[in-house]
Amino acid sequence: MAARQGFITVDWGTTNRRIYVVSAAGAIEERIKDDLGVLSVPSGGFGAMIADLRARFGQRPLILAGMVGSNRGWVETPYIPCPSDVHALVAGLKRLGDGSIAIVPGVCHISGDHADVMRGEELQILGALAAGLIPGDAPVCHPGTHAKWINLHGSHIAAFRTVMTGEIFRVLSEHSILADLIHADVRPDNAFVAGVRHGLHHDDLSAELFSIRARVLLGRMESAAAPSYASGLLIGNDIKIGLSFTKAADDVTLIGEPNLTALYAAALRTAGMDTRQIDGEEAFLAGAKRIAEEIAWDET
Amino acid sequence: MAARQGFITVDWGTTNRRIYVVSAAGAIEERIKDDLGVLSVPSGGFGAMIADLRARFGQRPLILAGMVGSNRGWVETPYIPCPSDVHALVAGLKRLGDGSIAIVPGVCHISGDHADVMRGEELQILGALAAGLIPGDAPVCHPGTHAKWINLHGSHIAAFRTVMTGEIFRVLSEHSILADLIHADVRPDNAFVAGVRHGLHHDDLSAELFSIRARVLLGRMESAAAPSYASGLLIGNDIKIGLSFTKAADDVTLIGEPNLTALYAAALRTAGMDTRQIDGEEAFLAGAKRIAEEIAWDET
Repeated sequence: MAARQGFITVDWGTTNRRIYVVSAAGAIEERIKDDLGVLSVPSGGFGAMIADLRARFGQRPLILAGMVGSNRGWVETPYIPCPSDVHALVAGLKRLGDGSIAIVPGVCHISGDHADVMRGEELQILGALAAGLIPGDAPVCHPGTHAKWINLHGSHIAAFRTVMTGEIFRVLSEHSILADLIHADVRPDNAFVAGVRHGLHHDDLSAELFSIRARVLLGRMESAAAPSYASGLLIGNDIKIGLSFTKAADDVTLIGEPNLTALYAAALRTAGMDTRQIDGEEAFLAGAKRIAEEIAWDET
Repeated sequence: MAARQGFITVDWGTTNRRIYVVSAAGAIEERIKDDLGVLSVPSGGFGAMIADLRARFGQRPLILAGMVGSNRGWVETPYIPCPSDVHALVAGLKRLGDGSIAIVPGVCHISGDHADVMRGEELQILGALAAGLIPGDAPVCHPGTHAKWINLHGSHIAAFRTVMTGEIFRVLSEHSILADLIHADVRPDNAFVAGVRHGLHHDDLSAELFSIRARVLLGRMESAAAPSYASGLLIGNDIKIGLSFTKAADDVTLIGEPNLTALYAAALRTAGMDTRQIDGEEAFLAGAKRIAEEIAWDET
């Protein structure tokens, strides 16, 4: 049964936070993004953060997802193993206070030598499934700091693999010898497509990255092309790993920030794949609503 | 003809500097290492640095190698193209002041789409060749921030490829989500060898790196094993790229810092290769002596 008074949900990441206030009828009354990610909260400071949310938005139930449930967050909420669906997420919720606060667990995947974790993306993926946005069993890619490639089976996350694409690009663009060259906006232009092609067809990422600097020094690449080429290279490499894992036949569903899903869609077209793009924010809200409906708020 | 008064040579890198004072008979009178790399020298400040060297060590000729000749150094000294040998280095020297200062050029390699540069390693490699430390045409690996894999032909550097192994490890260990896990000493232990094996036999570096965090979170890897596993993974991947480039039959010559050449030797053993290790400092000095002998100091 849905919470009669509506609810507040927070996509609480490492460095940012997105707050949504949802009415009993499911309308979004407020959308707020700020930089109060879990790393900005002082030790013992979550109680005050929650009191502030309640003071601003009323005594509604709170659904918290993302890194807030990690060992660097508020209360560690154990990963639930694959295969996992919305019912498994609900069963794994950590209820706090008088029960009106629920932290959504992450999902883990262990198989042979393979071990992987996600925290935050599961609510978007299962939300998109619940809202009927993902057709059949097509594999899903969630690009980002830690890109996820997910195999679905029915209404379950069956297996997934993480590729550190976004984070590797960030640390190189901020802290490496490539920083001056690639610290600029990336566009899906010809340089990007050339990088994607190299990444898709070669296994030499950590060498080809240095070649960018060498080509610019030797006058064989315009420095303006370097950010898009580097990004294309990393995304092409990411897609090669992802498609090898998901064994996608011919189409991929992309969920995430629209600027990132657009870049990955351009890269996947270069790989000959069809894509559909789902806004991660809408998928998150669909997931949070589904959780709100499943929770027995009155029991608490 | 060798300089009659001996010489001073500086291996002048980005963040560190090694100074050697060499007698006319070739004996090393002083070895000094400090942190006055080129990035620490203020704009217009090289003249004062040179005056200081002369005041401390006498009016001997100065041979400067490494990043001091780059576009971030003192006077940009153009790369000389492969194939290059000691004579080509001497022909490409930048002579400064009254001619008693010589900056050694870097080497570049352009072939089809491939473009690469080195600055500093060339003197070690050609020095080791001149001193008879490298047998025949065996490929050379120079591990480091930017590892180099070099094909030799006779007394020439014929071709080479750079892999950003050391720098990727550094930026991940200082600035990524893996920082807490891998920011510790690396040893050639079982975890290192397991990482090397994975890197040699898989093409999923940017995914396997994240798996380290997942395994530790899920209790499937001791956190103490993470630094060595991550290093092994990156070095295994490096060796895979390097052997694919050099097409080494069964042995590789390693030149560089002894702790690094030892790690690479352990990794290459895992790949079934024989190695010999040459101390990069001795190779550098052999190269500087060879340059000093070739220079016509008296012409200036």
